Amino acid sequence: MRAARLHEYTENMSEGLTIDEIDRPEITRSDEVIVEVEGAGWCQTDNHIIEGMWEQYVPQSLPMTLGHENAGIVAETGEEVEIVEEGDPVICHPVQTCGTCRACRQGETMYCENQSFNGLSMADGGFADYLLTNERAVIPLPDGVDPTDIAPHADAGITAYHAAKKAVRKLNPGDHAVIVGIGGLGHIGVQVVDAMSAAQITAVDLKDSALELAEEGGADHLVNPEKEDVREFVDSVTDGTGAAQVLDFVGADVTTEYAPDITAAGGDHHIIGYGGHIHEPAQALVNGEFSYVGNIVGQYTELQELVALVEQGDVDLHTSRYDLEEVNTVAEKLEHREIDGRAVITP
Amino acid sequence: MRAARLHEYTENMSEGLTIDEIDRPEITRSDEVIVEVEGAGWCQTDNHIIEGMWEQYVPQSLPMTLGHENAGIVAETGEEVEIVEEGDPVICHPVQTCGTCRACRQGETMYCENQSFNGLSMADGGFADYLLTNERAVIPLPDGVDPTDIAPHADAGITAYHAAKKAVRKLNPGDHAVIVGIGGLGHIGVQVVDAMSAAQITAVDLKDSALELAEEGGADHLVNPEKEDVREFVDSVTDGTGAAQVLDFVGADVTTEYAPDITAAGGDHHIIGYGGHIHEPAQALVNGEFSYVGNIVGQYTELQELVALVEQGDVDLHTSRYDLEEVNTVAEKLEHREIDGRAVITP
Amino acid sequence: MRAARLHEYTENMSEGLTIDEIDRPEITRSDEVIVEVEGAGWCQTDNHIIEGMWEQYVPQSLPMTLGHENAGIVAETGEEVEIVEEGDPVICHPVQTCGTCRACRQGETMYCENQSFNGLSMADGGFADYLLTNERAVIPLPDGVDPTDIAPHADAGITAYHAAKKAVRKLNPGDHAVIVGIGGLGHIGVQVVDAMSAAQITAVDLKDSALELAEEGGADHLVNPEKEDVREFVDSVTDGTGAAQVLDFVGADVTTEYAPDITAAGGDHHIIGYGGHIHEPAQALVNGEFSYVGNIVGQYTELQELVALVEQGDVDLHTSRYDLEEVNTVAEKLEHREIDGRAVITP
Amino acid sequence: MRAARLHEYTENMSEGLTIDEIDRPEITRSDEVIVEVEGAGWCQTDNHIIEGMWEQYVPQSLPMTLGHENAGIVAETGEEVEIVEEGDPVICHPVQTCGTCRACRQGETMYCENQSFNGLSMADGGFADYLLTNERAVIPLPDGVDPTDIAPHADAGITAYHAAKKAVRKLNPGDHAVIVGIGGLGHIGVQVVDAMSAAQITAVDLKDSALELAEEGGADHLVNPEKEDVREFVDSVTDGTGAAQVLDFVGADVTTEYAPDITAAGGDHHIIGYGGHIHEPAQALVNGEFSYVGNIVGQYTELQELVALVEQGDVDLHTSRYDLEEVNTVAEKLEHREIDGRAVITP
Repeated sequence: MRAARLHEYTENMSEGLTIDEIDRPEITRSDEVIVEVEGAGWCQTDNHIIEGMWEQYVPQSLPMTLGHENAGIVAETGEEVEIVEEGDPVICHPVQTCGTCRACRQGETMYCENQSFNGLSMADGGFADYLLTNERAVIPLPDGVDPTDIAPHADAGITAYHAAKKAVRKLNPGDHAVIVGIGGLGHIGVQVVDAMSAAQITAVDLKDSALELAEEGGADHLVNPEKEDVREFVDSVTDGTGAAQVLDFVGADVTTEYAPDITAAGGDHHIIGYGGHIHEPAQALVNGEFSYVGNIVGQYTELQELVALVEQGDVDLHTSRYDLEEVNTVAEKLEHREIDGRAVITP
Repeated sequence: MRAARLHEYTENMSEGLTIDEIDRPEITRSDEVIVEVEGAGWCQTDNHIIEGMWEQYVPQSLPMTLGHENAGIVAETGEEVEIVEEGDPVICHPVQTCGTCRACRQGETMYCENQSFNGLSMADGGFADYLLTNERAVIPLPDGVDPTDIAPHADAGITAYHAAKKAVRKLNPGDHAVIVGIGGLGHIGVQVVDAMSAAQITAVDLKDSALELAEEGGADHLVNPEKEDVREFVDSVTDGTGAAQVLDFVGADVTTEYAPDITAAGGDHHIIGYGGHIHEPAQALVNGEFSYVGNIVGQYTELQELVALVEQGDVDLHTSRYDLEEVNTVAEKLEHREIDGRAVITP
Repeated sequence: MRAARLHEYTENMSEGLTIDEIDRPEITRSDEVIVEVEGAGWCQTDNHIIEGMWEQYVPQSLPMTLGHENAGIVAETGEEVEIVEEGDPVICHPVQTCGTCRACRQGETMYCENQSFNGLSMADGGFADYLLTNERAVIPLPDGVDPTDIAPHADAGITAYHAAKKAVRKLNPGDHAVIVGIGGLGHIGVQVVDAMSAAQITAVDLKDSALELAEEGGADHLVNPEKEDVREFVDSVTDGTGAAQVLDFVGADVTTEYAPDITAAGGDHHIIGYGGHIHEPAQALVNGEFSYVGNIVGQYTELQELVALVEQGDVDLHTSRYDLEEVNTVAEKLEHREIDGRAVITP
Repeated sequence: MRAARLHEYTENMSEGLTIDEIDRPEITRSDEVIVEVEGAGWCQTDNHIIEGMWEQYVPQSLPMTLGHENAGIVAETGEEVEIVEEGDPVICHPVQTCGTCRACRQGETMYCENQSFNGLSMADGGFADYLLTNERAVIPLPDGVDPTDIAPHADAGITAYHAAKKAVRKLNPGDHAVIVGIGGLGHIGVQVVDAMSAAQITAVDLKDSALELAEEGGADHLVNPEKEDVREFVDSVTDGTGAAQVLDFVGADVTTEYAPDITAAGGDHHIIGYGGHIHEPAQALVNGEFSYVGNIVGQYTELQELVALVEQGDVDLHTSRYDLEEVNTVAEKLEHREIDGRAVITP
């Protein structure tokens, strides 16, 4: 089968992956599932993986097939698999968990001690004809939900949902949420906060087209930092109280340093994007009693909840489709910010 | 009356405050309370105020009487005060709140929009014969609790308790808490975590005498970073999982950077001390899904809870007493780390 | 001034109250506020008070002016009142709190140890030209919100909101909420759950006109128990899992006994209406691990949140207006279920 | 092998079970585990099962081997089992879960849609030489913990811990917990609340020997309802506020009706024991805003936490040992309240 693989780390996106012909994966455990890939979303993290930015954080061995936002049709199942069978459309949580460590028992998919993560660590990804995963990672799709359309939710969607769900728990009517960066993840974040809370939403982005997307998704206020001062805007719209929750889908130095000025006392600045650093005096966190809250992907059950939102029509994805052979083109376009919403590879 | 006042910011602790003779405060509102000060704890923050470190964060006008950890005997009350009367022993929460802003309604003492903070902002402190405060700031002491002994709990105690209470909510039996810095606040933090959870406690300090204090307070493991590697120790004692909660009573660069290495997935690194900075790549917070959690003092009701702990014998304060005239000596000693536990001024 | 007062308990609603001419209340404390009443909602609880149903639960002395859902214009203020002044439109939380007991400090308005409750206990109500209340009970209204329209939110609204907010915290997308009884409170409950969650809502009522109101408010499914079996419906629509949250605005024997059959494991059956009893074997609660959750009115800050919802257009009240002289007519109509939404008295 | 089995429901405990010779269970799935039973606790629920009290709640087919509190040595494992191997000492959570339904994904062991429950439903229990269970149900024991001693924690312990953990989350220093019924479960509940909170504990039991056990476990106040009025005592010791949390390990009519009188506003009356009924007017729950909270056993991860408490020495079990042939004698003794702490069968 065909697979888009990374052979060595590079800064040059035009030659990041090569299309190889490799063997179709085989089932060796009773709980494994092979999925014929219908759609695989391309993520900013794929660029970061190609650049070698994850090598120090997780075990990786090259060559590796990338692609961690996968959906498709079940092609084969291990002998004790019960929740899906051949022919079922599924979306694939990127992490295959063991089901027996303490983290798994707590529902903390991302903290599984024995995990493999498609296209990132210990497991090939979905930029290929077939994907090997397991029963604990697949979610059967409801009728009427197209695998290619929903694929990016497997990571972009769930990551946005995970952070937004944490934020929503603390947002009362009358409170303000600021959402920074309305790209592939951020435009989902806006819709989730809108569907699950009655808070006021302020969207922040450098591109006006992105702000329009935010407005369609339910944002109440739009701020382009090149035209308006974000700190002054938040101060004014919240009567000096600040935003109870900030979702930072950029994570650049310039966005993390908003926190002391725009976050309300007791509030959270969620780190989801990870382009840059936090540089703050400890005293700032003390004085404002705010937190920087890390976020990584989300739980399997959160992906179920997101699928419910999609099925109900509460969350819409903006996607564009590309052939497997176009993976490097997609990588370059994303680097130049030429992709609105999310690119989906259709092997 | 006598009052130890700051006339100008200085780095020189030996001449930080001067003992002035000023008028006794007077009651001008129906809810005000005048307390004859029996004990007023000296806090690291007093040094920071003298250095001018708070000037950019809160409104201050000099000269100002310092002292925000106060307890004493009620000397006079406004005409509508009901919870105390002349002669009652009380501990004073450092913040006088309005009782009518939204933050007050939520019990968030520290977020009051119209607050004054004894000895820090908008109100004189307790290094003086008498202190002006209000009904919403005083807590009557139970029989047998001495005002001088309990005074430091008004800020040191409540700050440690506030952070420890947040931590305890997330600590299950078998989990680990790391407490960094066993000084005036930290040695209370250890006792609170011990009294309110069944977690394992690891205390970290450069002074062995401080570690002994931690052990008396209930710490299960002691680490002196000059003798042992903190990261390796935590990794080993937690089987590689990390500490679910870290209470950082130092807040120096060198302690905030423990977080990515010692905090468990989903865990918190609480910033309480504020000597230094946080410098971390956003990716570290993403990869480890940990948070830097700001903490400032605590709620009035948390001070009530701490008084209950003291009354029950669950929390013991190590204090030494000094005359009002010795304030600058105390400031210097603290700077040279020559004070174990807490110094209390007895005007 | 005129006031509709209860002189003795009676089952006969046609002569429950009499219109008396009494003195206008006067200000005797620094924090008191006198409001000229523009609207005062009539509540099922007013009928219950007339019947004597609250005598055993709270201190009452007759004669007493009823009316606990009040809004109007500030007519006079005590000398230390700061958040409102003469001429301001306000909605009045029914409870005047002391602001200094532990419950008040925690924001638990309803648990204040020194409270008076307009028209129920220790304080006259708003079926009168003027109402005496205090600063901690009034909320200034935003521009464009009419006091007469919003008055019933002071109790009907806040009670529905309080229970709905508890429920919403536990409702994930894909979960089901069942709302039983779509009257004055229930039709607000539907709108709150819809605005603050992405859960599926099933409304249950014996009147089809009430179900239509629920549908307008955002209910996804409608069940009339005279035409369809509630247990079977919930079982079917939730695939046998049950409803995560049930809001019971009726509280009759026949509705409380739904719980073991329709509540999901770990779920809650909220008791808001109180017409009848709970009769269940303890084993039922054990086997299904569900809870019966009591609810009384709500916090001051919850009323602020509800006002925000109303201002944003998320919650609409169905009201009809009546003169002060018509109070007994309203009481009778309500008893015969002839009032849709909420009746508001306009003194 | 030998197995103590129930052939028909009966009220006569002297002939409830018979000792049969049956085949040793066999492994048929990759995740199954066979345990040689060292200890199996006898539970009040075993008496209830014999009486037929569970027949209407769960699927049961007779004959069935009873025994749901099991610990022993792993005798054989399915081919994909990884967390234990032959010879390992283990405690067995009574429920074998599927690991793939939504409840399992959330860590909600007890809500698994495809569960079997040893000795209660769909699976034989541990009053036998060998027990068939699976990898998701076993917890390896730390060194120094004896399987026979710890066995009752598999149900008695985890059930007490589960409810106590819920209670502890809401208990602040100065709050009061009332624990009703100091038997096999209750004496564990006292120790857990003591280890994990700084609340005041009041123990209630008809037997003075049980109250002594409570005192050893950390109870601060003891009440024998035959000698002292429980309502008056709680009122007095809490200054009229009531107990924030009540753990009712009896669940009789007479204990559930304590709730309106002894539970603080906003508090919970936990139903754990299930001998009787709840009969309360809905208005009582409204007026006091308290809840009746159902509790069933606990999560696998809670059993891990309890094992940690046992290992740390925070929880001690009072047990007495009996041969397999004595099961009916034990059943009778329990019925006549002649067993202090917990009886353990040692097959």
